[in-house]
Amino acid sequence: SNEVKEYENYFGLTLLSRRSDKRTDSKWLSKKQSHPTTVYILFSNLSPLVTLGGGIEGGQQPEVKLCRLCHEDVEQCMNQTEEGTLIFLGVELQFHMNLLAACNRRVLQEDEEDGLVAWFALSVDSASAEKFKQKHADCYFLHPPMPALLQLPEKEAGVVAQARSVLAWHNHYRFCPTCGSATKIEEGGYKKSCLKEHCPSLQGVHNTSYPRVDPVVIMQVIHPDGNHCLLGRQKKFPPGMFTCIAGFVEPGETIEDAVRREVEEEAGVKVGHVQYVSCQPWPMPSSLMIGCLAVAVSTEIKVDKNEIEDARWFTREQVVEILIKGNQRSFFLPPSQAIAHQLIKHWIGMNANL
Amino acid sequence: SNEVKEYENYFGLTLLSRRSDKRTDSKWLSKKQSHPTTVYILFSNLSPLVTLGGGIEGGQQPEVKLCRLCHEDVEQCMNQTEEGTLIFLGVELQFHMNLLAACNRRVLQEDEEDGLVAWFALSVDSASAEKFKQKHADCYFLHPPMPALLQLPEKEAGVVAQARSVLAWHNHYRFCPTCGSATKIEEGGYKKSCLKEHCPSLQGVHNTSYPRVDPVVIMQVIHPDGNHCLLGRQKKFPPGMFTCIAGFVEPGETIEDAVRREVEEEAGVKVGHVQYVSCQPWPMPSSLMIGCLAVAVSTEIKVDKNEIEDARWFTREQVVEILIKGNQRSFFLPPSQAIAHQLIKHWIGMNANL
Ligand SMILES: Nc1ncnc2c1ncn2[C@@H]1O[C@H](COP(=O)(O)O)[C@@H](O)[C@H]1O
Ligand SMILES: Nc1ncnc2c1ncn2[C@@H]1O[C@H](COP(=O)(O)O)[C@@H](O)[C@H]1O
Repeated sequence: SNEVKEYENYFGLTLLSRRSDKRTDSKWLSKKQSHPTTVYILFSNLSPLVTLGGGIEGGQQPEVKLCRLCHEDVEQCMNQTEEGTLIFLGVELQFHMNLLAACNRRVLQEDEEDGLVAWFALSVDSASAEKFKQKHADCYFLHPPMPALLQLPEKEAGVVAQARSVLAWHNHYRFCPTCGSATKIEEGGYKKSCLKEHCPSLQGVHNTSYPRVDPVVIMQVIHPDGNHCLLGRQKKFPPGMFTCIAGFVEPGETIEDAVRREVEEEAGVKVGHVQYVSCQPWPMPSSLMIGCLAVAVSTEIKVDKNEIEDARWFTREQVVEILIKGNQRSFFLPPSQAIAHQLIKHWIGMNANL
Repeated sequence: SNEVKEYENYFGLTLLSRRSDKRTDSKWLSKKQSHPTTVYILFSNLSPLVTLGGGIEGGQQPEVKLCRLCHEDVEQCMNQTEEGTLIFLGVELQFHMNLLAACNRRVLQEDEEDGLVAWFALSVDSASAEKFKQKHADCYFLHPPMPALLQLPEKEAGVVAQARSVLAWHNHYRFCPTCGSATKIEEGGYKKSCLKEHCPSLQGVHNTSYPRVDPVVIMQVIHPDGNHCLLGRQKKFPPGMFTCIAGFVEPGETIEDAVRREVEEEAGVKVGHVQYVSCQPWPMPSSLMIGCLAVAVSTEIKVDKNEIEDARWFTREQVVEILIKGNQRSFFLPPSQAIAHQLIKHWIGMNANL
């Protein structure tokens, strides 16, 4: 999967292969849990434990990095936590590739060391988190997650996106939605089953057992003249920030119709052609941002004040200036880690001479 | 939204505007519920009530159509059912457009008739359904839903997709997943809130309150030589049917990586470039099928027998023959209503002389 350079949005790159086939291999999972090469990342209240690395090329801003712990580091917390908070994230991609090449030459024996470096996410309660911080003074939990998570190195951000989304699912979906009973976690953290014997959720395959992913459309809306784009702001945004319009895809709706519906609902602008550009997982808690370019067929803006505070057409020149010169006094855009930033840049790059 | 002809997949077209702004207008909703022009569609066990229309141009196969009921028809069932099973679907698009034009000229008075034709979906229990069928001998519930739903006229299929997905959510998500308590339905059927006073799900906005949409990737995988495509079959398929590989997008994963992971997991084939083509809501119960073209960078097939039964490279000629001549003895493809069929056709059309 590394041969192709697509739009690689932040949270979309990862250093792991998920190896979902291992989720049902409880013998392998439990062997890896106590294996010395295994990497643990710790979460408290859905925030990852990080540390500060040296500045890149010295003298620069220190780098925020995930604390990569080993079994010994977490053994004590693990015994104190309920089972359910351990998620198998995958195995290191680099290692995995080398090994696959080696395995093509011969078959591994039953109990032989496979050399795969497994990663797990472990969520601990506040008491354990506190104890942990006392023992490891150089570590801290990135809280509140936004915008703090955006400080992580790109490849670690992908791992955190995966872990945080699955952990948030366990946090918010503790009980069986079908019957209200308690549940148990299975398959390395990717499945949840009702504990009540005859619950209808146990007959057949139901999405109640699997983590949720919420598709969201986010779109760069282009004026019919091709030289303006529509950006809006919510009340809760920092003053002066404008960004692309976005909204959740509804049941029974296509991506393209969700784009048209949201732009019309929020800004009163009608959209014709819609084109997919790229996507981004957004772990707040588990969205899939589907980025599109949308061509407006009307221009009058009527803001729905319940949804957004303001929406305006910005000229290409205004946007270019902000992208080149950084924050202006008049308005600013989301940071480069946000897909909105990338969509806006994509539009600028499309037929401008930059 | 009607100006643009995109790939319009079955279940993706609709005759309604959702008018989500009306979901919180309980006065308007309750007025429309008993309004004489309002259309009700009935569901029992997630299957819609239909009837047979005359064959198109006479003598042909009779057409399956939704039973469009009025308030009087359903009044009795409605009193017998719990509140929660009524979903506001939207207003008729045609009417809506004419009216919007009229309203641009003057503002409606507070209590004035707005002329909008509202649609509701009503889910009834088996007893009410039975009674209803006895009274309306020409009507029946389309059960089992698949492949029966594929008989609906295209625009009605979109309405059914929306209704069925939301109703399935209410069916499977009766209790608060965060605390296990009972819930109440709000906002025309699009929101569900926990009834326990201090439940954490009531603080802030959480996806536990909103209907689920499960993004699924489905991909036409092209051989590096450009002249073969990869199709597979599951054990549960009718004998001889082959289709595109598909799978659920996981938390923290991009569409493109989900495509690569699923193709490698199920068929052992590595994929490089991935390109979005079109999407389709699939109401079984609430998937969003995201259709892609995927270019393979390896050719050896290794089938994961847990997931699929068989996967093979088919030549362009084999696929063309099936698409033109219909079912052969050797293998066949899903019907034209399935996005897989459209993806395969899209590939054939791309650079073949048809
Ligand atoms: N949201 C979901 N709903 C149902 N199955 C899921 C979901 N997410 C992952 N799965 C997995 O996909 C399998 C069913 O896939 P399918 O054969 O397409 O119905 C299940 O056995 C699960 O392992
Ligand atoms: N899956 C979902 N999770 C959260 N909010 C949702 C979801 N689906 C629809 N919504 C709506 O989107 C609003 C929040 O959007 P936002 O301002 O982007 O956080 C909520 O008030 C809901 O009305």
